[in-house]
Amino acid sequence: MARIRLFVEHPLGEAQQVPLSREQAHYLFGVMRLSVGNEVALFNGTDGEWLADVAEAGKRGGTLACREQSQPQWMPPDLTLYFAPIKKARTDFIVEKAVEMGVRRIVPVQTDFTNSERVRQDRLQAHAVEAAEQCGAVYVPEVAALAKLGQVLRDWPDDAQLMFCDEALAGQEQKADFGAQPKDVPWGILIGPEGGFSDAERARLHGMAQSVPVRLGPRILRADTAAVAALTIWQTTYGDW
Amino acid sequence: MARIRLFVEHPLGEAQQVPLSREQAHYLFGVMRLSVGNEVALFNGTDGEWLADVAEAGKRGGTLACREQSQPQWMPPDLTLYFAPIKKARTDFIVEKAVEMGVRRIVPVQTDFTNSERVRQDRLQAHAVEAAEQCGAVYVPEVAALAKLGQVLRDWPDDAQLMFCDEALAGQEQKADFGAQPKDVPWGILIGPEGGFSDAERARLHGMAQSVPVRLGPRILRADTAAVAALTIWQTTYGDW
Repeated sequence: MARIRLFVEHPLGEAQQVPLSREQAHYLFGVMRLSVGNEVALFNGTDGEWLADVAEAGKRGGTLACREQSQPQWMPPDLTLYFAPIKKARTDFIVEKAVEMGVRRIVPVQTDFTNSERVRQDRLQAHAVEAAEQCGAVYVPEVAALAKLGQVLRDWPDDAQLMFCDEALAGQEQKADFGAQPKDVPWGILIGPEGGFSDAERARLHGMAQSVPVRLGPRILRADTAAVAALTIWQTTYGDW
Repeated sequence: MARIRLFVEHPLGEAQQVPLSREQAHYLFGVMRLSVGNEVALFNGTDGEWLADVAEAGKRGGTLACREQSQPQWMPPDLTLYFAPIKKARTDFIVEKAVEMGVRRIVPVQTDFTNSERVRQDRLQAHAVEAAEQCGAVYVPEVAALAKLGQVLRDWPDDAQLMFCDEALAGQEQKADFGAQPKDVPWGILIGPEGGFSDAERARLHGMAQSVPVRLGPRILRADTAAVAALTIWQTTYGDW
């Protein structure tokens, strides 16, 4: 059986006692049926992963006692995924996939052709926590509030690179020098909305000195597929794969 | 608005009349509200893509008239995706993603650790049709019946290559020569089940002359994420991207 992993907002260390919230206690003791003496793996984003034993188990709370460190702290590359929110289920998937693939930050962006209602930042952040628990990471990427693409590009730092995926490129040749960009700098990946970028957005993106267009094959990918494909290309070229 | 694309099992060509089934008529005229004179793009897997006009529209049927070819016929690389079926929604996703990413054939496999109930081959094939319509392809990959992994490996052709993704490799170095395998031969990609391969399966896979293990980063990917990531690596190395 796979080990139960839990993200906690509490210091972890030798013999550290970690109190559980009501939700955490419900999950561990109600849903997963753990009891005193059972093992859980904990991480908090700064202290690595620790194996802990259930010391007290109650309906409304409990305590875990750290025993030994099982992973040192490590961080994903300085990579941010920007994407235009789509239908609820696929937006959830993009967040989950981004965490598994290894990003540090996730930013939903409003583009000219995005039909985005409100984005539930707290719900997406909870998805990111769950994905981090599932994939063995020891950090949880931050999910930012909905930002306007125009503003993101206006504020783009000189020293950061941006890889963008434009479905209008589906018929064209890939720019040959993707692997020749600066490596140890912050990177962003921008996934276009399913309706594509507007002409103004496209002109702005192609005009940026720090941007690199990437073609993702001859077929048109859904945004969630494109996100995983783009992250794979980036991770195998510049990242921690 | 995106063009409506429809897969039909009927010859396509200059001035060809294409009769519609009841389901197709319901979709075009009931759901999409098309009427006589509106345009649809058709493909059948052999004749490329044709623009056609609605010639007759009825509740139980109708006729489309081909006007001009809009894409020549093209096929994806000779690539088969093998995967262990998981929860229904994620199995559907794997089929959809495989079609978008570009495979010729999709084979659900039963592994030692697969909890697979029955696989609904017809439902998965219908998902493949829908994904092909959506992604602009002019063919529909075949979804095969559930096969036993052991049998697939015993029958593996000498001249075909197999890339397999093993979550046990998550902590190890990637075999350096993935890009040095034969190119113009049939390929398969095997995605391990979420519980991993059994020791016997792993030994058999590593012992095959035609197999190449691939590591997909330091985090543990869900099967649907792993499928897209593996297909990206294959397509950018050997495929049509």
